Amino acid sequence: MIVVMKKDATPDQISHAVERVEALGLKSHVIEGTERTVIAAIGDKREEMKEALESGAGVSEVVPILAPYKVASREVKPEPTMVTAGSLQVGAGMLGVIAGPCSVESEEQIVRTAHAVKAAGATALRGGAFKPRTSPYSFQGMKEEGLKLMALAREETGLALVTEVMSTDDVDLVSDYADVLQVGARNMQNYRLLEAVGKSHRAVLLKRGASATMDELLLAAEYILNEGNPNVMLCERGIRTFEGHTRFTLPLASVPYLHQKTHLPVVIDPSHGTGHTYLVPDMAAAAVAAGADGLILEVHPDPETALSDGYQSLNFEQFAATMEKCRKVAEAVGLQIHAAEAVAAGR
Amino acid sequence: MIVVMKKDATPDQISHAVERVEALGLKSHVIEGTERTVIAAIGDKREEMKEALESGAGVSEVVPILAPYKVASREVKPEPTMVTAGSLQVGAGMLGVIAGPCSVESEEQIVRTAHAVKAAGATALRGGAFKPRTSPYSFQGMKEEGLKLMALAREETGLALVTEVMSTDDVDLVSDYADVLQVGARNMQNYRLLEAVGKSHRAVLLKRGASATMDELLLAAEYILNEGNPNVMLCERGIRTFEGHTRFTLPLASVPYLHQKTHLPVVIDPSHGTGHTYLVPDMAAAAVAAGADGLILEVHPDPETALSDGYQSLNFEQFAATMEKCRKVAEAVGLQIHAAEAVAAGR
Amino acid sequence: MIVVMKKDATPDQISHAVERVEALGLKSHVIEGTERTVIAAIGDKREEMKEALESGAGVSEVVPILAPYKVASREVKPEPTMVTAGSLQVGAGMLGVIAGPCSVESEEQIVRTAHAVKAAGATALRGGAFKPRTSPYSFQGMKEEGLKLMALAREETGLALVTEVMSTDDVDLVSDYADVLQVGARNMQNYRLLEAVGKSHRAVLLKRGASATMDELLLAAEYILNEGNPNVMLCERGIRTFEGHTRFTLPLASVPYLHQKTHLPVVIDPSHGTGHTYLVPDMAAAAVAAGADGLILEVHPDPETALSDGYQSLNFEQFAATMEKCRKVAEAVGLQIHAAEAVAAGR
Amino acid sequence: MIVVMKKDATPDQISHAVERVEALGLKSHVIEGTERTVIAAIGDKREEMKEALESGAGVSEVVPILAPYKVASREVKPEPTMVTAGSLQVGAGMLGVIAGPCSVESEEQIVRTAHAVKAAGATALRGGAFKPRTSPYSFQGMKEEGLKLMALAREETGLALVTEVMSTDDVDLVSDYADVLQVGARNMQNYRLLEAVGKSHRAVLLKRGASATMDELLLAAEYILNEGNPNVMLCERGIRTFEGHTRFTLPLASVPYLHQKTHLPVVIDPSHGTGHTYLVPDMAAAAVAAGADGLILEVHPDPETALSDGYQSLNFEQFAATMEKCRKVAEAVGLQIHAAEAVAAGR
Repeated sequence: MIVVMKKDATPDQISHAVERVEALGLKSHVIEGTERTVIAAIGDKREEMKEALESGAGVSEVVPILAPYKVASREVKPEPTMVTAGSLQVGAGMLGVIAGPCSVESEEQIVRTAHAVKAAGATALRGGAFKPRTSPYSFQGMKEEGLKLMALAREETGLALVTEVMSTDDVDLVSDYADVLQVGARNMQNYRLLEAVGKSHRAVLLKRGASATMDELLLAAEYILNEGNPNVMLCERGIRTFEGHTRFTLPLASVPYLHQKTHLPVVIDPSHGTGHTYLVPDMAAAAVAAGADGLILEVHPDPETALSDGYQSLNFEQFAATMEKCRKVAEAVGLQIHAAEAVAAGR
Repeated sequence: MIVVMKKDATPDQISHAVERVEALGLKSHVIEGTERTVIAAIGDKREEMKEALESGAGVSEVVPILAPYKVASREVKPEPTMVTAGSLQVGAGMLGVIAGPCSVESEEQIVRTAHAVKAAGATALRGGAFKPRTSPYSFQGMKEEGLKLMALAREETGLALVTEVMSTDDVDLVSDYADVLQVGARNMQNYRLLEAVGKSHRAVLLKRGASATMDELLLAAEYILNEGNPNVMLCERGIRTFEGHTRFTLPLASVPYLHQKTHLPVVIDPSHGTGHTYLVPDMAAAAVAAGADGLILEVHPDPETALSDGYQSLNFEQFAATMEKCRKVAEAVGLQIHAAEAVAAGR
Repeated sequence: MIVVMKKDATPDQISHAVERVEALGLKSHVIEGTERTVIAAIGDKREEMKEALESGAGVSEVVPILAPYKVASREVKPEPTMVTAGSLQVGAGMLGVIAGPCSVESEEQIVRTAHAVKAAGATALRGGAFKPRTSPYSFQGMKEEGLKLMALAREETGLALVTEVMSTDDVDLVSDYADVLQVGARNMQNYRLLEAVGKSHRAVLLKRGASATMDELLLAAEYILNEGNPNVMLCERGIRTFEGHTRFTLPLASVPYLHQKTHLPVVIDPSHGTGHTYLVPDMAAAAVAAGADGLILEVHPDPETALSDGYQSLNFEQFAATMEKCRKVAEAVGLQIHAAEAVAAGR
Repeated sequence: MIVVMKKDATPDQISHAVERVEALGLKSHVIEGTERTVIAAIGDKREEMKEALESGAGVSEVVPILAPYKVASREVKPEPTMVTAGSLQVGAGMLGVIAGPCSVESEEQIVRTAHAVKAAGATALRGGAFKPRTSPYSFQGMKEEGLKLMALAREETGLALVTEVMSTDDVDLVSDYADVLQVGARNMQNYRLLEAVGKSHRAVLLKRGASATMDELLLAAEYILNEGNPNVMLCERGIRTFEGHTRFTLPLASVPYLHQKTHLPVVIDPSHGTGHTYLVPDMAAAAVAAGADGLILEVHPDPETALSDGYQSLNFEQFAATMEKCRKVAEAVGLQIHAAEAVAAGR
C-alpha cells in the first residue's frame, strides 16, 4: 500500500502515519518526493488497512498495490480452471453453451426447447423456476414445479441443468435438481447466498452485478471459493451505463481482462447483455472471438408468447443459426465447441 | 401503452399486433401517422404486457404510459407519509436524523456515540451488527452481540435503533432489537428479503441500489408495501457513475423527484454518497435544502481507528457542526428538526 | 509516481523499469514488498511520463501522485479567486446569479427577462445567440443579431452579459458584446477554443463536459489560465449517467470537492443539471447550501413557447420564488447574495 | 409524437395541449385511457416540438416516435454505404484496417510503421499531427511537419492517410494532405467543425463522444451529411462508464445496432476502447465477429518510447498476429479483408 500525504502535511502528521502503518503490522518506508511525501507500507494483507489509513490527518490518499482477492487470482493458480457439471464443460479451451427459456412455463415448452437447443449444439439447459422480478406484480416462476419439469427435460436429453437460486432458503431444494446454481446479477453481493452456494456441492454460475467492478465480482467469487467450492464460472451479462438503446452495455473486454486476472472461466450472456433479439447473434459471435469460455442464451419456442424476456429470446431457428456462426468463429480462434446433432432429431 | 410499429411494418403485422393487444385484454386504438403506425393499448395493467408486445414482428418499440408501481405512488395516496419508529420521525415536514458508527465495535464506542449524537440533535442511532462486506476477509460485524450493545445504548439514551438486516434468516432476530430494519443497497433487489421485512412489524429503511433506477427503487418499496408494511423510508445513498473522486455520485434531485412520484419519505446518506469525511457536512446541508425528510450519517468517536468506513465518518465535533449547519438550513426551507440538547450532557 | 511491477516481474524487467525512470530525469527508489516490487519515481513533472512507463515489460500499473494541473491548483494559490465582470461577482463568499433565456428570441423577450431577473436579484443576464444544437434541424440562434439585443438589455438594466462562444472564429465578435464568454459542455475539450478564450480579455464560464472527470475539467481550465486569463469560473451542469428521469445527474459534491482542489469559483446550473422546471428550485437551494459561488438559471417569460429548453426554464414568478428560497439558504450558510430590488420595477 | 398528460390533468389542460399540437402544424388525436389521456401528434417533423410541448401545463411527458436523424437513416437509404478513400474501402462487406501510431514523431517512425502495417494487411495509415491532449503540458503533435511526413509514407506505401482535424482553421490544411479527416471524440459535438468537414471533399471518420448516445452520434453525422458530404464513417471508440480497469468501455453491440439504424459503415477502435495493449487483439477479433466494417488500431515501432498512447499501442509483431486472427474471424463471418503481403517486405 502506498500512503500519499498531502502537500502541506506536517512532520508530525507524517510520523503519525508511519506509526499507524506500523501499528497495523506493516513495515513502513518513507519516500520524500520533490513535492510530497509518500509512505510505502510493506506486507499488506487486509483491505481494512486501506480504510484505516485513509482517515489519518494529513493523508491525501491510500493506493493499494495488491489485488484484494486471493483464491480467485491467476497469480495463485496460473492454469485455467475447467468447470464440469454433467454434460457441461466450461473453460480451459472448452466452450460451453447454455441455452433455454428465461422461465420454465410448461412441460411441453421446456422439453421441446431442450431437444431443440441440444440438436443445435447446446451443452446445458437453462430455465428459471425461481424468478427475481423487478415488479411484485410480474410472474414469479413455477418454483419447485418448474424444477421438476427441468429434471424431466434432462432425463430426455441428458443436458445439464442451470437454474437460479434466489435465497439461502432454497439452496438445498434447488441443489436437488440443478447441476449448476446460478446466482443472479441482483444477488451478486448477497453474501449469505454466496456463502450458502459455496457450501453446496454444485457448480456455480455467478453473474456480475449491473454496477459491480471487476474487483467486486472477483471478491464475490472469493466468498464462494472461500467456502470450499472451486467450481465457479463468472458471467458477464452487461453493466448499467447511460446507453438506453440496449438494455445493458455488454463489455466484452471483460473476457481478456478476467483471463489475465483469474483462472476461473468466463461465460457471456448476450441476451441480457443487449436486451434485443436482433443483437444477440452478432454479440454471441463476438463473445466467442473475444475468447469467452461459455455462452448463456435465452431460447424460447415462441418468444412472442413468453411469460418473460421474450424481446431478447431467440427462437429455435435463430438459435441454430447463431450456433452455426459461433462454431465457425470458435474454430477461427481455436476454441473447442460441441458439434450440432442432426437437426431433425431435436425438433 | 403505445406500440410503435416499424416504418415498413406490413398491414398483416399491424393486424397481428392489434390482435395481440386485444388478446391481453386491452382495448386497441390504431393511429396512422405520416411515417409510421402506432397502436394505443388502453387499460394496461401489467408490466409483462410490454415485454410480450415488444417481441412481435414489425414492432419497433413499446412505450409504457403508466408507472409500474401502485401503492407507493403519489397518485394513489397524495398526502406525504410520516414514518415513526420510537424517537424517530421522518417525513411530512419532520426531518429525522439517524447517526452512529458504521459498525458496532464495543459497548464504550456505541454508548458514547449514542450520547454524543443525541446531544447534537440526532433522533435515532445507526450501527451495523451484520455487515455486508465486499471482501470475505473484512470484518463482518459483531452479529447478535452488536445488537445487544445497541439495545444498551437505546436504554441509556432513548434513541431508536436503525440497523441492517442482510438475510431472511436474520429478520426475526434483528426485529427483536431494532426499531428500523435497514435493507442495504446491495440487497435492494433481494426480493425474498424485501418480502420478509414486509411481513415484519418494523419500519424499513430501503437503500437505493448503486445502479437502480427510480422505478426499480419504487418497485422494491412496492414489494415491502405489498406485504402490508406501510412504514417504508427510501434512502438515496449515491449511484455508481464514471466519477472516481467520490465513492459514489449523490444525486440530490432524487429528493424533489421522489416527492413528486411517491408519498414515502426520502432520507439522504451523505456518508456513503460521497465517501469522504470532508464532503459530508456540505452535502448534508444541501440535502436538507433540497427538502430531504431525513439524514443518515456515519459518526465515530475516533474515525481513524474505526473497523470500517472511517474515511467517511464524522467525529463528534464534526457531527455537531454539521447539525448546526443543517438546523439553520432546515429553518430556511421550513423543515422541522429537533433542537440539540445541551452539548455537555452527551460527551 | 509509483511504478507497480507485476508479481512475476523478473530482475531484468525491474532494472529496465529503473533505467526508464532515470532516463526520464526522475530519481528512482526501489521498494521490495512481500509480494511485489514497486519503484517510486521522484521529481515527476509531466503527464507523458506515466504513459511512457506504463508500457514497460513487467509493469503492472503506474500511479500518479501529483495532480496534473498546476495554475488552477489550490496548492499553488490557497486563497479563493473572485471573478468580477461588470455587475457580476462570483467567488470568495459572493454568490453570483446568472439568469435568462436559453436563446435570445426577440428584443421584447430579452429585455423583459432582463428586467424581471434583475428585479428578483440576478446579477448577470444569460442568453444564447450562437446555439450548439444536437440536431442540424433545430433553431441555431440569432447569431450577432442576438448579441445586439443582449447589449440593449444590458443598457437598460446594467446587467453583465454571459453568452456562449462555439468557435474560435467567433471569439472576437462575441467578446465585443459579452462580459463573460461561456464555453459549453460539448466544447470543454475543444482545446483551440480554450486557447482562444484564454487569449481574450473576457472572463470565462467553463462548463464541465457531460463525461469529464474533475481532473479533465481542471486541465481544461488550465488551458485557459495558461494563456494568461485568470478569470475562469467552473460550472457544474450535470453528468451523464444511467439515470433517465433527469436530463443529467447533478453531483453537488463537486462544489466542496473543487473548493478543496482549486481556488477557482464554482457555479451550478440546475436547469441543465435536472432538465425539468419542477426540480430546479430545490436544486438551486441545495447548490447554495453546498457552498456554490454562483448559479446559472434558465428563465423565460413564457417557457411553453420558448424556442429551446422550455421544459427546464422557470417563468418570472418561479424565478422570483427560487431566489427568495436561495437567499434564505445563503444567509443560513453565510454566503453573500444580492438583495432583490422592488419587484414592481422589473415587470 | 405522443403527449402523455398527467393523471390529474384538467379538461382545460388537455384542450390547451391539443391546441398547442395543432399550432405546431400537427394533427392531434386524443385517446382517453383508463387512467390518463394521451394525445397522438401526427406529422411531426422537428425536434423542437418535443421541447415545446413538454413544458405545457398538465403534460407528463412527450414521447417521440420518429428518429431525429434523416439522411443517415437506413429507412431513407436501405443499402449500406461503402466509403472509399484512396487505398481504403470500408463498408458493404469490405473490412478496412487503419493502423499507425498515435502521434507522428519522426520520418523513420512513420515510414517504418507504414511499411510494417501494410505488410500485415492494413489498408490505411493513421497518425496524429494535430493532437488534442487533456493537459496543456503534454506533447501537442508535430502539426504540418507531421502531415508532410505522413505524405512521405503514403508516397512510399500507397496507403491512404487518416488524421485528425481539431479546428475549423485547419480543415483546408489537413485536407491538402489527408485522405480521411478524423473528427475526434472530444469534438463530436463541435458543430462548426462538423459543418466544415461536411463542406470539404474528404471522407470523414467521425468518432463517438465518450458519453454520446447513438442518436447524438447519428445527428452529428447528419451535420456532415447535411452539408453535402456523403462519405462518413462512424467510429465506436468506447464510452465512459464506472469501469476503471479499462480506459473506456467498448460496447460492440453498437455495430449491429448501427447497422440496423443507418447505412453508414461502422469502424471500431479497440486501442482507445480498452486502453491496454494486451486487450486489443481479442477485442479487434470480437469487433470483426460483431460485423464491424473497419478497425482502427494504434501501432508503434517501440510502444515504450512513444510520445503518446504507448500503453495501448501494438508493436509490429503484435499487429501482425492481430491481423492474422482478424482475417480468420472475418472469413468465418463472411467479411472481405485484404490479404497480408509478404511480411519480409515491410520490416
